[in-house]
Amino acid sequence: MNWRRIAILGPGLIGGSLGLAVRRRWAGCEVVGWTRKAETARKGLEVGVAHRFAASAAEAVTGADLVVLCTPVGTFEGILKEISPALAAGAIVTDVGSTKASFVRTAEAVLKAGVSVVGSHPMAGSEKKGPAYASADLFEGAPCITTPGARADESALESVEGMWREVGCRITRLGPEEHDRLMAMVSHLPHATAVALVRVQPDAALPLAAGGFRDSTRVAGGDPQMWHDIFVDNAVAVRAAIAAVKSELDAFDAMLASQDSQAIIRWLSEAADRRRPMFPGLTRLGG
Amino acid sequence: MNWRRIAILGPGLIGGSLGLAVRRRWAGCEVVGWTRKAETARKGLEVGVAHRFAASAAEAVTGADLVVLCTPVGTFEGILKEISPALAAGAIVTDVGSTKASFVRTAEAVLKAGVSVVGSHPMAGSEKKGPAYASADLFEGAPCITTPGARADESALESVEGMWREVGCRITRLGPEEHDRLMAMVSHLPHATAVALVRVQPDAALPLAAGGFRDSTRVAGGDPQMWHDIFVDNAVAVRAAIAAVKSELDAFDAMLASQDSQAIIRWLSEAADRRRPMFPGLTRLGG
Repeated sequence: MNWRRIAILGPGLIGGSLGLAVRRRWAGCEVVGWTRKAETARKGLEVGVAHRFAASAAEAVTGADLVVLCTPVGTFEGILKEISPALAAGAIVTDVGSTKASFVRTAEAVLKAGVSVVGSHPMAGSEKKGPAYASADLFEGAPCITTPGARADESALESVEGMWREVGCRITRLGPEEHDRLMAMVSHLPHATAVALVRVQPDAALPLAAGGFRDSTRVAGGDPQMWHDIFVDNAVAVRAAIAAVKSELDAFDAMLASQDSQAIIRWLSEAADRRRPMFPGLTRLGG
Repeated sequence: MNWRRIAILGPGLIGGSLGLAVRRRWAGCEVVGWTRKAETARKGLEVGVAHRFAASAAEAVTGADLVVLCTPVGTFEGILKEISPALAAGAIVTDVGSTKASFVRTAEAVLKAGVSVVGSHPMAGSEKKGPAYASADLFEGAPCITTPGARADESALESVEGMWREVGCRITRLGPEEHDRLMAMVSHLPHATAVALVRVQPDAALPLAAGGFRDSTRVAGGDPQMWHDIFVDNAVAVRAAIAAVKSELDAFDAMLASQDSQAIIRWLSEAADRRRPMFPGLTRLGG
């Protein structure tokens, strides 16, 4: 990697972890941070997620070879407009958002020709937030999806993918819309069902919750503003995903109504057979 | 505990762990196992879940002060009929099943007067099964619900609760029907949604699954026969739970359709506020 300066806008858990990982691997590269929140900047400097923090997003991206947007998806348009005049020709702009079509579309509309747009979605993180939880190892073994814009040349794309690979990610390249459709199913839908599972519980059930409920609903503790942005941005695909899971529950409900043991066993077995080989590293006993 | 003999029928993960925990704590108490499967008996003896295995369920319960049914819920009626003539007057019969109304009802119908019926539901375990995974520590910190039958005297109930407490459980006492209604919400429903989440995924989404999907669907790898028995036994309450979660998803879908940001944030925040204080021991970073 021959970048001399990387700007990380919004270095919380994800961006902060990227800053730590970049600093550990590429001593010659300066990491510049920017955030609206003074407390995040103070904590970020203390943890070492950036060499320095700039006073504005435009100042942070000045002279940067790579700009990484790590703020909530809903803030992208405003920030892109703000940094556009300050970007060097040949700069690459990427992000770490959980949806990709709107980032690529907005960035290509706002940014001048000569700036490459590559969407990134490193699938690491947790319900924790902020640079205090940042870790240089956060991306080890995590999937990362890259979504090239129409304007991204192959070398910009390979540079961004190379960075993610170096910090530990497994790369999959997808079109932005295909990314959003698949993420609605495998990530946004499980968030919606987790929230629904928490909401429907009567108070008397909560003291009886055990390991199954704990794991099934862990993600429901995630940041509401961040998830609002994802759901609003990807509403069409999420609504299709909700319809799919409701239809699956309807089918199961009909099997229960008719006490169709053979169908119930098949419904459960097919899912168990599909789920068990996934995540082979997971050996923890549930409890 | 002044029991001289405990019979554990079906000592897999749960029953085997109980056998190990009892043997560790009460040296004077003989643990007798029984299982239909020769391999489970062989492995059980090797792991030490019982002092010896009997050739039949009736032989296993002969002279036992406490009998613990650890076989699938669907086998209870047959086993109860088989052991009934062999039970000593004053014996206590309990179980570890995930539903309680049918066990208590069936046991009180089948067993003779003078035998106490107490339902037990220790909420420990995992998607693993068999005595090979048994652990004397399995119950440490786990909730255990006891459901007295109409015929259980207070001393039998306290004896059973005392045993669970000694092996590490936190006891809640509930009526059998109330237990089943609450479990449908907090345990059986999360299992159904996990299975549905696995089933609806297109193949292309599976390589993109990360920590959220992993945790949300962990329980879907559970034993299909065991879960079939639970769902069939508790079908009425499970169907009400499915209707509740579908209605919650419908409400969310309507918010997405109208892009009602305020309602979406509230929907997510109320769940996050409710979920976050639960399971305070869980500090693991999700990924």
